[in-house]
Amino acid sequence: MSHSRAYVYQLFDAQDGGRGLERVFDGVILGLVLLNGAAVVLGSVKSLSTAYRPFFVGLEIVSVYAFTIEYGLRVWSSVEDRRFRDPVRGRLRFMCTPMALIDLLAILPFYLSLAGVDLRILRLLRLFRLLKVARYVRALDVIGQVVRRKRPELLVTTGLIGLLLVLVSSLMYYVESAAQPDKFGSIPETMWWGVATLTTVGYGDVYPITVAGKVLSSVIAVLGLGLFALPTGILAAGFSEQLAQQHRSAETLPYCPHCGHKL
Amino acid sequence: MSHSRAYVYQLFDAQDGGRGLERVFDGVILGLVLLNGAAVVLGSVKSLSTAYRPFFVGLEIVSVYAFTIEYGLRVWSSVEDRRFRDPVRGRLRFMCTPMALIDLLAILPFYLSLAGVDLRILRLLRLFRLLKVARYVRALDVIGQVVRRKRPELLVTTGLIGLLLVLVSSLMYYVESAAQPDKFGSIPETMWWGVATLTTVGYGDVYPITVAGKVLSSVIAVLGLGLFALPTGILAAGFSEQLAQQHRSAETLPYCPHCGHKL
Amino acid sequence: MSHSRAYVYQLFDAQDGGRGLERVFDGVILGLVLLNGAAVVLGSVKSLSTAYRPFFVGLEIVSVYAFTIEYGLRVWSSVEDRRFRDPVRGRLRFMCTPMALIDLLAILPFYLSLAGVDLRILRLLRLFRLLKVARYVRALDVIGQVVRRKRPELLVTTGLIGLLLVLVSSLMYYVESAAQPDKFGSIPETMWWGVATLTTVGYGDVYPITVAGKVLSSVIAVLGLGLFALPTGILAAGFSEQLAQQHRSAETLPYCPHCGHKL
Amino acid sequence: MSHSRAYVYQLFDAQDGGRGLERVFDGVILGLVLLNGAAVVLGSVKSLSTAYRPFFVGLEIVSVYAFTIEYGLRVWSSVEDRRFRDPVRGRLRFMCTPMALIDLLAILPFYLSLAGVDLRILRLLRLFRLLKVARYVRALDVIGQVVRRKRPELLVTTGLIGLLLVLVSSLMYYVESAAQPDKFGSIPETMWWGVATLTTVGYGDVYPITVAGKVLSSVIAVLGLGLFALPTGILAAGFSEQLAQQHRSAETLPYCPHCGHKL
Repeated sequence: MSHSRAYVYQLFDAQDGGRGLERVFDGVILGLVLLNGAAVVLGSVKSLSTAYRPFFVGLEIVSVYAFTIEYGLRVWSSVEDRRFRDPVRGRLRFMCTPMALIDLLAILPFYLSLAGVDLRILRLLRLFRLLKVARYVRALDVIGQVVRRKRPELLVTTGLIGLLLVLVSSLMYYVESAAQPDKFGSIPETMWWGVATLTTVGYGDVYPITVAGKVLSSVIAVLGLGLFALPTGILAAGFSEQLAQQHRSAETLPYCPHCGHKL
Repeated sequence: MSHSRAYVYQLFDAQDGGRGLERVFDGVILGLVLLNGAAVVLGSVKSLSTAYRPFFVGLEIVSVYAFTIEYGLRVWSSVEDRRFRDPVRGRLRFMCTPMALIDLLAILPFYLSLAGVDLRILRLLRLFRLLKVARYVRALDVIGQVVRRKRPELLVTTGLIGLLLVLVSSLMYYVESAAQPDKFGSIPETMWWGVATLTTVGYGDVYPITVAGKVLSSVIAVLGLGLFALPTGILAAGFSEQLAQQHRSAETLPYCPHCGHKL
Repeated sequence: MSHSRAYVYQLFDAQDGGRGLERVFDGVILGLVLLNGAAVVLGSVKSLSTAYRPFFVGLEIVSVYAFTIEYGLRVWSSVEDRRFRDPVRGRLRFMCTPMALIDLLAILPFYLSLAGVDLRILRLLRLFRLLKVARYVRALDVIGQVVRRKRPELLVTTGLIGLLLVLVSSLMYYVESAAQPDKFGSIPETMWWGVATLTTVGYGDVYPITVAGKVLSSVIAVLGLGLFALPTGILAAGFSEQLAQQHRSAETLPYCPHCGHKL
Repeated sequence: MSHSRAYVYQLFDAQDGGRGLERVFDGVILGLVLLNGAAVVLGSVKSLSTAYRPFFVGLEIVSVYAFTIEYGLRVWSSVEDRRFRDPVRGRLRFMCTPMALIDLLAILPFYLSLAGVDLRILRLLRLFRLLKVARYVRALDVIGQVVRRKRPELLVTTGLIGLLLVLVSSLMYYVESAAQPDKFGSIPETMWWGVATLTTVGYGDVYPITVAGKVLSSVIAVLGLGLFALPTGILAAGFSEQLAQQHRSAETLPYCPHCGHKL
């Protein structure tokens, strides 16, 4: 039995594509995940959800069966991993890893609906199944690595953006609220204008109409954009650094050219 | 005859400008292509297309004659290329190259219209003639090279964008659909809002009106922009790298020209 | 007494987190500052400001007490700093430093309101309390350093933006004012369109409707965006340089650790 | 006389600030240019132009006098420059340099108005006076140098943008013109939508309403933004390179460290 458990563990954890069966297995689960995503998206269109009801219900049942079995096998075989050796406590700790929680969230809605919980929220929870993609598509790791590596920069700039947004919206509130009390009626309301302006989305539902408001808005837009673009720039730079590093790690010369020692 | 065929092949394939006749020839075809582009654009304005009907019809006939002859000569002389040596199979393989297909698409609409096919779609197909520009303007190769070189990065980021768009639109649908069932009535409909927001286009036809929707939209706009700007950043970086490399390949001098020491 | 003054000075000026009491002290003041920011923002919502009036008034009184004591202790202990040694003139010069002025502005509104000054403007002044954050959050220094370092570049590009905005708005005014005298009625009015277009915010309240205006606007948008994005790019580049430099200063190793040769 | 001519030439051409009188002279002209810019902008506001009519007229007369004398002295002293030595042909050639033409355009409107030419266009021409700023503010040279250095890149990307805009607008025209014949009535009209979308300005006056149009628009927005951002990125990169180079030119070590030869 420990032999078959090791085999199951291998099946789920094959780091680099693996042999025949592992690949087929990965492909089936990934396909099911994407199909579920499509079902949530298309199922929200009323005409489709009523016309193809049997298909949506069928997919739901098949998916829950498959994902439940997958989850069970993962928990059962997790003790093969050194970190989760203990049969009970090890498995419980495995169940608390982010990826295992996502796997649980992917099947929980169905069982909760049997228990009579409101359906609308459950349908939203089903979307978390899409996060299972992260397990099967390696390339998605890159973005996680970039965010982790650039965390201090991203935190500082996000903090700055928050501070700027509060200051800018407060100023605008004092300037514009008298002329447009329905749209600039309080600072939190004015922040909706602030976000639309500083991200340059500019829906056009809220904009200043007084001269003072327009002048202030212009100054804010020109000076503030730079700050709002900082996280974007940091993320883009981190992304290209990360990919450049992955390329280099295969090519570089990590030895001192003078003495030949590894550096 | 094989001599004149070689000459025709040279005429079409002169890599760097070539001598007198090649240049004139290239200029005439390029001019005709651009003129065709202008004709499609201006011909869509009803007042112009009726007023200058004879000119548009004349240009069409001249262009089709010229492009047909060009296409015929290209197919005939293609066997001069080592890759397409075989008189029949070689020529057929040449006809399946992307550039030859574009040349065929440039003349096909005219012959199909003689066969009675609907005109509207054919006029659209005539736009493909503009793609013939790629053959005559070398500089356009750069963008193709950049896309090919950065393909993995572009694929990953485009995938991420797709995933983000689905998740974000689904969340927004659950938050906003009750208040605005006509604009956020389903997840695919909500994706129109998602694209307008995350690209910062913000037409202003769709935007959240509930407090929860505005808060969610603000968070999404601030955090999501970074991800949507990634392909843009990658393309821009790849473009300047490509051009820098082309400059360097002619200029670099990694040795002191006086003593020969590596610098 | 000079001993306790030195201790108070230490309490306020601990450069790196410091020991127990300094940390608690910093945390309390920072918390009070953030609470004040939240109070200004939420206090602008009428329903909240009336429902929780006692809380807002209480926070105001506690904050003013605390900030007044803080300000007093800072002025008193400032003579411990070499730059402000003189008991009278030194303290006066300390009171003119930007940070001390912010501290004064943070408490002034309250005392002015006792003197009968109009409340609306005072409430706006209270926002300056948020600037006290800069004293307690080190990370915010980075942005100041970047702006100082890139000042010449930022000044040149801001000047260019101003010049471009005037030229572009003037052209647009001459082209569009006849068709839309209410929106493009003068060059300053047209500058509101200019800012909305060149920052790509595009609220949609002002846009050209004549053919000439649309063509001009298209050319301006395509060519002008590059110039408006320059300060953003400079700020982003400066920010990542600054952070890279801070990393490097701790890590770099420009010698082979094995043979001591420079690499 | 040739002595005083050389002195006048020096006065106008002092490369680095120069001594007392040159600086005063430069300051006066620059001040007059900026005052003229302000007058054109503010003079377009009807209430101001009628209220302060004498001031605007006075400034116009003083400026034309000053700029005419400046232009005359420049032409007279231009022969001091080696390139324009010949008293007649040299001066004529000097009058054809871009800067001399700007100086001429700055005074021409006034003399043409005396000759009875329509005023509206002349007022627009007066804006060209602002271009005289370029002569007196050195920092503005940077942008010119960047554009000249990056000309090939900027030309290629601008060409690509033009091609993309035509293709994208044509596709959209065929998809959307049936549903909104007033806004997508021809390809040139649709290009207004194309510019608003691809620059992300998104005024909101034109947007697709059919499902096919929205899908196409989404794909175009996501894929096309990268191309439209290329000139911006190139300009920003060129700008920071140019400034970095100016810094370095003072610091670098342009000698081979091995043999000491200049490189």
